[in-house]
Amino acid sequence: MANFPANVTIREVGLRDGLQSIATILPTEQKLEWLRRAHAAGVREIEVGSFVPAKLLPQLADTAELLACAKTLPGLFASVLVPNLRGAKRAIDGAADLMIVPLSASHAHSLANLRKTPDDVVAEVARIRAARDAAGSRTLIEGGVGTAFGCTLQGKVERAEVLRLMQASLDAGADRVSLADTVGFADPRAVRELFEQAVRIAGDRFWCGHFHDTRGMALANVYAALEAGVNRFDASLAGIGGCPHAPGASGNASTEDLAYMLDSMGAGTGIDLPALLELRSDIARWLDGEALHGALWKAGLPRTFEQTRVANAA
Amino acid sequence: MANFPANVTIREVGLRDGLQSIATILPTEQKLEWLRRAHAAGVREIEVGSFVPAKLLPQLADTAELLACAKTLPGLFASVLVPNLRGAKRAIDGAADLMIVPLSASHAHSLANLRKTPDDVVAEVARIRAARDAAGSRTLIEGGVGTAFGCTLQGKVERAEVLRLMQASLDAGADRVSLADTVGFADPRAVRELFEQAVRIAGDRFWCGHFHDTRGMALANVYAALEAGVNRFDASLAGIGGCPHAPGASGNASTEDLAYMLDSMGAGTGIDLPALLELRSDIARWLDGEALHGALWKAGLPRTFEQTRVANAA
Repeated sequence: MANFPANVTIREVGLRDGLQSIATILPTEQKLEWLRRAHAAGVREIEVGSFVPAKLLPQLADTAELLACAKTLPGLFASVLVPNLRGAKRAIDGAADLMIVPLSASHAHSLANLRKTPDDVVAEVARIRAARDAAGSRTLIEGGVGTAFGCTLQGKVERAEVLRLMQASLDAGADRVSLADTVGFADPRAVRELFEQAVRIAGDRFWCGHFHDTRGMALANVYAALEAGVNRFDASLAGIGGCPHAPGASGNASTEDLAYMLDSMGAGTGIDLPALLELRSDIARWLDGEALHGALWKAGLPRTFEQTRVANAA
Repeated sequence: MANFPANVTIREVGLRDGLQSIATILPTEQKLEWLRRAHAAGVREIEVGSFVPAKLLPQLADTAELLACAKTLPGLFASVLVPNLRGAKRAIDGAADLMIVPLSASHAHSLANLRKTPDDVVAEVARIRAARDAAGSRTLIEGGVGTAFGCTLQGKVERAEVLRLMQASLDAGADRVSLADTVGFADPRAVRELFEQAVRIAGDRFWCGHFHDTRGMALANVYAALEAGVNRFDASLAGIGGCPHAPGASGNASTEDLAYMLDSMGAGTGIDLPALLELRSDIARWLDGEALHGALWKAGLPRTFEQTRVANAA
């Protein structure tokens, strides 16, 4: 366990990946509370939304407002998802710290979800890079390679194709790359094998692992990725999330369960768990009727709980 | 991942650890169906019950009958739990393949659960070994060291004490030893560290890992134990189980989720997953109203599912 990271960053993606895949549309005021309280609990990276047409995802129509608020929170690194150059321009205008360009390694999923081939998306990454540089912007570009372990539509996704597209994203100008198990096909052995290769290729530019808990393996997959030296993971409070083009896919890794596991392992996350659980409880109230996930909220923290480190918490 | 085992055995413990901790008392006929159909689906180790006074655990009063049935199923290795010499004699009489003597590394939990200190239990292991040998029986003795990662009553449990009690059980005549996270305190890093030491001490006599999913980490803990070279795990269909003296403790690792993870990883379990899921669905009907667990039954098997190996299945 030589590579095992001492500190791990959790990127909260509930405000984007979570809210885009459920029916409830939260009022902006509640989203801002989610954002502010996650930050107050020590979360230091948050994906605040997605710059897609409001017609397509009305749930995320207030992304610019969330981004503006995020920029006022000290030490917060604010990400947004951008499917194309048009979205990227809005991220650059809003001075997002990072914009994630999603790319699906499954051609079938890519066509269904983005109406582009994976290589078309790589070409868009190059255009986004050119626009970013021309604007003199400091917004980082993340190439997020999804369906990296398999796909409900296509079935098998070849590891060589995943790594080729990751490399192609870097070559096209992405500053960071990530791998996502968009539809819950990963297992910890596959994660360790793929992530070790990915880290070897991308080095410090490998940014984040994104796992869904579709078949209960999200935390096992995170642990396997930690062993490969990865130290940043996407997760969503109450485990909400999914993908409209991935039938059967259910929630993201739940932020509170992941933070608790990392804390138990002695990996500092900077997150204040009792504060996070309070926020989770309010989110569950706001999202009454939606399918929520996670185990910690039911069991609670052990009576003997002592946190490893709560450096970030305000 | 040099140690990574190619084949892994799942010991189904729902008929004991599962049923002892819920209110529903299943009729013997349904338990026999559970036993037979788990065997037919390829499960080759089953803990069929517990030889405790029927007054204490009326749910398990028919253990002798289940053991007799188990003995008729080809290739099935039948275990029973025995808290003391009296129970051990019944296991020997019934020709169980293995009897598990539970021992709690937490002194507080040991007193609450067994009304004995851990070292009193070690002394009982010696008496059980003497009785077994005197009877010329071939029933193996497993010293199962519980609360190996912490305890709700006592809090911290020292690793040195866990390993001392494991060694003491072997010295007293146990043929096998196991480690159990009885109350859901383990995390994958702690599992890997403890299990590596345990395997170094016990070698081939290290038998089984037992994890609860209290805070969502059961599968991550199994993966960490696999990396330490352990190749046998307790689990319970629908994830039922717990411990009456461990407030807040919830279900065991769910058999179906564990079998699916192992299959995904290419580790042969011999279990026919569709048949197991059908049984799980009937158990859920029998246990209507009880808190059940697990993720696979909700998501289902992927459309692309192909099993690694179904060697055992009848």
